[in-house]
Amino acid sequence: MERPRHQGMPKNTSMRWRLPLVCLLWEVAMIVLFGVFVRFGAEADAHWEEEKREMNLTSDIENDFYFRYPSFQDVHVMIFVGFGFLMTFLKRYGFGAVGFNFLLAAFGIQWALLMQGWFHSFKDGKILIGVENLINADFCVGSVCIAFGAILGKTSPIQLLVMTLFQVTLFSVNEYILLNLLHVKDAGGSMTIHTFGAYFGLTVTRILYRPNLEQSKDKQGSVYHSDLFAMIGTLYLWMYWPSFNSAISDHGDAQHRSAINTYCSLAACVLTTMAFSSMLQKKGKLDMVHIQNATLAGGVAVGTSAEMMLTPYGSLIVGSISGIVSTVGYVYFTPFLESRLHIQDTCGIHNLHAMPGLIGGIVGAITAAAATEDVYGKEGFIKAFDFTGAYQTRTPSIQGGFQAAGIVVSLLMAFAGGAIVGGILKLPIWGDAAAENCFEDGVYWEVPEDEESDVYHMHNPDKPASP
Amino acid sequence: MERPRHQGMPKNTSMRWRLPLVCLLWEVAMIVLFGVFVRFGAEADAHWEEEKREMNLTSDIENDFYFRYPSFQDVHVMIFVGFGFLMTFLKRYGFGAVGFNFLLAAFGIQWALLMQGWFHSFKDGKILIGVENLINADFCVGSVCIAFGAILGKTSPIQLLVMTLFQVTLFSVNEYILLNLLHVKDAGGSMTIHTFGAYFGLTVTRILYRPNLEQSKDKQGSVYHSDLFAMIGTLYLWMYWPSFNSAISDHGDAQHRSAINTYCSLAACVLTTMAFSSMLQKKGKLDMVHIQNATLAGGVAVGTSAEMMLTPYGSLIVGSISGIVSTVGYVYFTPFLESRLHIQDTCGIHNLHAMPGLIGGIVGAITAAAATEDVYGKEGFIKAFDFTGAYQTRTPSIQGGFQAAGIVVSLLMAFAGGAIVGGILKLPIWGDAAAENCFEDGVYWEVPEDEESDVYHMHNPDKPASP
Amino acid sequence: MERPRHQGMPKNTSMRWRLPLVCLLWEVAMIVLFGVFVRFGAEADAHWEEEKREMNLTSDIENDFYFRYPSFQDVHVMIFVGFGFLMTFLKRYGFGAVGFNFLLAAFGIQWALLMQGWFHSFKDGKILIGVENLINADFCVGSVCIAFGAILGKTSPIQLLVMTLFQVTLFSVNEYILLNLLHVKDAGGSMTIHTFGAYFGLTVTRILYRPNLEQSKDKQGSVYHSDLFAMIGTLYLWMYWPSFNSAISDHGDAQHRSAINTYCSLAACVLTTMAFSSMLQKKGKLDMVHIQNATLAGGVAVGTSAEMMLTPYGSLIVGSISGIVSTVGYVYFTPFLESRLHIQDTCGIHNLHAMPGLIGGIVGAITAAAATEDVYGKEGFIKAFDFTGAYQTRTPSIQGGFQAAGIVVSLLMAFAGGAIVGGILKLPIWGDAAAENCFEDGVYWEVPEDEESDVYHMHNPDKPASP
Repeated sequence: MERPRHQGMPKNTSMRWRLPLVCLLWEVAMIVLFGVFVRFGAEADAHWEEEKREMNLTSDIENDFYFRYPSFQDVHVMIFVGFGFLMTFLKRYGFGAVGFNFLLAAFGIQWALLMQGWFHSFKDGKILIGVENLINADFCVGSVCIAFGAILGKTSPIQLLVMTLFQVTLFSVNEYILLNLLHVKDAGGSMTIHTFGAYFGLTVTRILYRPNLEQSKDKQGSVYHSDLFAMIGTLYLWMYWPSFNSAISDHGDAQHRSAINTYCSLAACVLTTMAFSSMLQKKGKLDMVHIQNATLAGGVAVGTSAEMMLTPYGSLIVGSISGIVSTVGYVYFTPFLESRLHIQDTCGIHNLHAMPGLIGGIVGAITAAAATEDVYGKEGFIKAFDFTGAYQTRTPSIQGGFQAAGIVVSLLMAFAGGAIVGGILKLPIWGDAAAENCFEDGVYWEVPEDEESDVYHMHNPDKPASP
Repeated sequence: MERPRHQGMPKNTSMRWRLPLVCLLWEVAMIVLFGVFVRFGAEADAHWEEEKREMNLTSDIENDFYFRYPSFQDVHVMIFVGFGFLMTFLKRYGFGAVGFNFLLAAFGIQWALLMQGWFHSFKDGKILIGVENLINADFCVGSVCIAFGAILGKTSPIQLLVMTLFQVTLFSVNEYILLNLLHVKDAGGSMTIHTFGAYFGLTVTRILYRPNLEQSKDKQGSVYHSDLFAMIGTLYLWMYWPSFNSAISDHGDAQHRSAINTYCSLAACVLTTMAFSSMLQKKGKLDMVHIQNATLAGGVAVGTSAEMMLTPYGSLIVGSISGIVSTVGYVYFTPFLESRLHIQDTCGIHNLHAMPGLIGGIVGAITAAAATEDVYGKEGFIKAFDFTGAYQTRTPSIQGGFQAAGIVVSLLMAFAGGAIVGGILKLPIWGDAAAENCFEDGVYWEVPEDEESDVYHMHNPDKPASP
Repeated sequence: MERPRHQGMPKNTSMRWRLPLVCLLWEVAMIVLFGVFVRFGAEADAHWEEEKREMNLTSDIENDFYFRYPSFQDVHVMIFVGFGFLMTFLKRYGFGAVGFNFLLAAFGIQWALLMQGWFHSFKDGKILIGVENLINADFCVGSVCIAFGAILGKTSPIQLLVMTLFQVTLFSVNEYILLNLLHVKDAGGSMTIHTFGAYFGLTVTRILYRPNLEQSKDKQGSVYHSDLFAMIGTLYLWMYWPSFNSAISDHGDAQHRSAINTYCSLAACVLTTMAFSSMLQKKGKLDMVHIQNATLAGGVAVGTSAEMMLTPYGSLIVGSISGIVSTVGYVYFTPFLESRLHIQDTCGIHNLHAMPGLIGGIVGAITAAAATEDVYGKEGFIKAFDFTGAYQTRTPSIQGGFQAAGIVVSLLMAFAGGAIVGGILKLPIWGDAAAENCFEDGVYWEVPEDEESDVYHMHNPDKPASP
């Protein structure tokens, strides 16, 4: 019963009017909303000289820009080059991977500045933005890039824009619940970004299940150079993850600590990934899919706890475990999810983001629950968990409970949101490609003539015509 | 009458003595001039401890290095990886794109340190350099990389070095006129870098017009992987452009504000570029040329105004418009320039730098003219436009007029300079390739044997012999 | 007599049990050792608030994180993307280049944190780590990446891990002798990283000499796109080298100065490399091997002296010379080393690291010996060379002598260590590939099916079967 229209019916994938219309209307909406709401925060406003006096700052170096801008740029690279190139592993979907990631992220950061601004930076009717807002917008879009990984190659750019619109909205609501209502700590986003983003994407791809996807099986693999392009993405994500997890931590020791913990976790993760990649293959050969992805699980899994006193050896343990879980996931879970649960997860985000994200949330809850004034120091303890104001009386074990609640909320939001958005994306108006044209840039991109035909002749000499 | 010598006359493109001679002589000249003139500025000199006391600085963190070095590194990446890889889109000119860009930029920054140093950092007979000089040298070379885009594939490395020598010189003169004589603001270089660089390059390529360039038409396109390499350049330019526009702004709010404005403008630009790329193509497919280039126009177009109180929504508007203008330019203007005006613009710098640069200059003039003490604060107003000393009495509207004058001066310098330098480059002594060998690495590079022959056989089975 | 077992005997290269075993055992060892020894340094510990008061710091910006983190991230990119992609130039060894570099570096940084920690950051039974330790760990691993360049394509991943274990250990001992016992300055590691790493690697590859390597001659070259991938590595190394040489210099002027000197040296190096690359080739064409490697020699050669008052023109001279030496090395020395000394140096590290490293050590000794209070200022002089405490009475000329001694010690450690480790790696238990399978990813990696066969058919139609 599922989508019989795909069988033998050519779909209208021309974007000529729909894509421009959506892009332009939404950009106009952004301009209007920015015009009404968005202004510079105090540290980016030309009134800063006066502000500085009021805040008793003696130097421009105290501007938050200098605390966070280098980390922001690293995060920015992760979103656009990291996620973009990580997904270029497919032999004929490099343009779509990099290009659509570019499109959805560029739209998403604008909408995220608004959504997150209303929740977190709203003052006297205006959203006041600074470098931290830019980082948070990039973070928010990161969760969309993750979800994009599940549906890579199977959706039209309009579907991606629609998904971005809804997912950014839901992300902001979920983030507000976690950070403001539950008063949960999640600086590196194990829950808000990875768990939410991944289960959202997996739910969407489940709803969009395509029973005839084996028709484009030959295009779901990589070629030699596409695997090298993907390694560019992998390495930039891996190298800059310490910046990701520390970007919005408190100034000083918290940022410093987050970077160290993440560095350690990622290093350990590489070794266990290599070990299991080799072990789980009959001839002991390493698999590029694992190296490209599972090596990053260590960054995801310390997202919540990196700014806490996880300690370097704690980070090594978390990183080691997540590398194993993620690699095992690629070998055993992904095929299972596809064949039994009809979850077609192109990039394996279940292994790279969903499971490690859950690990991250749990490790964060445990680390929070185990916190003591002895380990953090009296002031450090209060500062680390913001046990001030209404939360003055919260104890570590209660905080641990709320952290755990944060995982559950993120999961529920992801499943519910993913189901609704998946349903919307299933409407037959968005111009997605037929099953036999999935994972093929030619559907939405002008592809250079000659090489296309070369590749066609070399790789698909017997490509079956549509029935 | 135009260059009949190209017809059927093999040209001597051997660089064996000419290139080494030019490189070595010029490097010796650099060493001598640096020896006579260049010394460390106070903040990089070992006397810094004493300097610190004199300047009443309490911490090493007040050293300009910490305000600007991260931005410098981002700019550095833009010049060498950004411009270098952006130009690798040609199927057989990747070595030349990356390699010649490397060569001209490495020479250019040395010469720029001197030229700009004489104009701006000269004290007691010495040029005192620090991190800001490195940024400015990279900026200056950026304008040469832009011009290189117009003549990409059609010139010898010696021609490029000669052009660099002259263009850096003219750039520095133009910059001095704008910044010092007209007292114009242009932190991101819409006028000094983009308008000047682009119209200079376009004039040079007009002078070097090659009527028989269709002989290498088959090599002017891209192949699948060369388009992906180019996207590396695009994304690094796009991601780091906020650093470019804020790198030499005043400490504090100005750097902060520049980054935010640029971030917003670039995000908007991606959406309008995608919209028009799809809309202007019959089948609605996206064109990689637009995505690689026009998405960057938003960074160019806020170059002058980013450090002003342009506001985030103002940036969205500027970015949106520049994306549209640039994409339309690729579709309609570039063919027109080539067929009617005989301007062969390999990379389409007219669309990415020239028109957006003009927009940037105009937006800057308007934003300056519209400035009020109310918006900037009393101190902020003076600081933003340096209305001190001799300029104490300048009003915003007068400043706007001078900004506009800066555009005109840059254009005149570009046309005049480009005409002269183009004339010099036309002398038949520089070893440029014949028309049928343009866009071909094999002329100046050792190219790996087998793949070359493969590609040759696959793509050029019927390459005509020279008559 | 040399390794006759290679002749006609298929080797067991399956890593299925050995690689996982080594990776997992070592990771467990890391966890245990980190658990016993490694803790956060004061600036990354949650007690930082109290620490700040004790140290009389008024702002979080004084945390070392903000002085060094941007440089750390640049160094991190150099190790993983820089070295990794630089080595992808081989047509069929891209996975091994990037992947094994990833593996050994990820293991190496953990072990380096311990080894260097015991020597330099040990306090009350604990190693206290902060961002400077992360940089130093990356530096240490850099020397392993260099040595990897000599044996690239000829060793199994287990051999690489074994080499990393020993080399990191020896590096730390050598570094301790130089920095602590000889009180030598070497912030950019000309001696500790480059001279040591390169001669260590050259000794190892000499011991592992393979007489039949010409059997895989056809795979020792590059193809067009692999050369472009390698340029990504080159450019990131080149651009970020100023960060490398300044990353652990003293706060303030020393970091600033190191960056400027390195920037100048590298710029000059590009010109002389291009000049000699063209001059030494019959037809005057440029050779990608030189551009990819020799352009970097300028960074190596100012590694010791960059933080001293080398001056910009001194840097230009050093950079110019090192570019020439390195390029000449590729043309004349590398073939000589292979044919006469049986040193098979895959990446030419002798030209890029060994000789420029020696130049760097010598320039450092001369620059130190030539230092005067006049040039450095009274305080600057003491600070630059740490002439305090036990070293209060050291004069520049004595310092120069110790610097020279540092070169000799590094060389001796490299030769002795390389000989021992080479001997260990020669044991026939590590699963290295037979000569005819060297430089071939298929031995240790799952390689995408179709393209492999394509390339096979196109490039190796007559690959001889093993005798």
